[in-house]
Amino acid sequence: MAQNIYDNPEFFEGYSRLGRSLEGLEGAAEWPALRALLPELRGRRVVDLGCGFGWFCRWAHEQGAAQVLGLDISENMLAQARATSTSTTIDYAKADLERLALPQASFDLAYSSLALHYVMDLAGLFAVIHRALVPGGSFVFSSEHPIYMAPTSPGWSIDAQGRKSWPVDSYQMEGPRVTDWLAPGVIKQHRTIGTTLNLLIRCGFAISHVEEWGPTDAQIAARPELAEERERPMFLLISAAR
Amino acid sequence: MAQNIYDNPEFFEGYSRLGRSLEGLEGAAEWPALRALLPELRGRRVVDLGCGFGWFCRWAHEQGAAQVLGLDISENMLAQARATSTSTTIDYAKADLERLALPQASFDLAYSSLALHYVMDLAGLFAVIHRALVPGGSFVFSSEHPIYMAPTSPGWSIDAQGRKSWPVDSYQMEGPRVTDWLAPGVIKQHRTIGTTLNLLIRCGFAISHVEEWGPTDAQIAARPELAEERERPMFLLISAAR
Repeated sequence: MAQNIYDNPEFFEGYSRLGRSLEGLEGAAEWPALRALLPELRGRRVVDLGCGFGWFCRWAHEQGAAQVLGLDISENMLAQARATSTSTTIDYAKADLERLALPQASFDLAYSSLALHYVMDLAGLFAVIHRALVPGGSFVFSSEHPIYMAPTSPGWSIDAQGRKSWPVDSYQMEGPRVTDWLAPGVIKQHRTIGTTLNLLIRCGFAISHVEEWGPTDAQIAARPELAEERERPMFLLISAAR
Repeated sequence: MAQNIYDNPEFFEGYSRLGRSLEGLEGAAEWPALRALLPELRGRRVVDLGCGFGWFCRWAHEQGAAQVLGLDISENMLAQARATSTSTTIDYAKADLERLALPQASFDLAYSSLALHYVMDLAGLFAVIHRALVPGGSFVFSSEHPIYMAPTSPGWSIDAQGRKSWPVDSYQMEGPRVTDWLAPGVIKQHRTIGTTLNLLIRCGFAISHVEEWGPTDAQIAARPELAEERERPMFLLISAAR
């Protein structure tokens, strides 16, 4: 089973205070870019892998999705998601993405936001998702970018002129990375972009779009602290077709 | 027209002394990984974009390719390629990849080694290549990796413990990068992996394989200086299907 850091009280409290937790999708700077990769949802069946507080599930419901299934490993998050549920067509269930079972050909869209970098057996999960989608179905997800995850000591370096850079090392050494983010000892799985794409392709997915997310000019004008995100990508957004 | 740095005498002399120039394909550490992406060549028609001294063209001929066309912007390199030509089924021609014209559906494989990062209009070139390939044809190429190209001052940083890292900045700022490699003022075009893949997809290519090249254990045992290539990728290898 993957580490369930979200039910660590210290982590959960910190996570609950993030913009993306308080404000939902609009509090996540990469959301407009991720939303642009989504198919029309009206009448569609949607599964959200790592649904957290359920923001995306509620949004999908508002877009007219016929059925929405939100899956998460965290009891804390599922409890909040259920408490804010707006419809009987949204279901929430506890699931470990390392050993997920989904019915065959039962979803039009599989979605995941910033959850897959916790998964060790990504090949196994991609196979489950491929099988669960209908032919022509979409798989749209974000994860942390390998440039962001790879370093043994991730962080900015600032030179004498105040210029920021992000020192990369260990890029080819795939596997666990332990960082202290919100709580000590958060374990993520570093993989190259190539590995992630090739796992998708070998499962039978066709790659539709790959985006190493960076902020727009308008986003930087509104939130100048986002400018550093242009120096190195923090998020990877991918859409693929079954 | 793209900069033709290869006909700069200082650059050409330095380039001619590289392992990949003297020893050919086997002198390029990424060649085994790139070769693994190639289709069977027997009886096939091949175009090499940026053929240099013609090492790949001669190899493709040895593999039984029916016709091989090597294209390069450098008169110096074409002269050497022609001088070592081994067959009348290999042709060489001068071409600027910024304004390439190729006959429609006339090649089974388009190949390019470390040339596309000099090209400004990559979308235009990809469209020409897509049109020149037969349905089911392959496009296999290497280029410098954006992690390698992005920084304003690319180079290793070494900490007090002797640990190497590669500081990345300006990753989202696509466009020209001027470096002094073999000669001053070499101009390359930095693009994210996402941009390159999305240009291919929009042209109608299906992505088959993406590899952010790193050395194998055996390669490092034979050439210990290659170990640093595990810290950050220098090359990007891509295969796509028409």
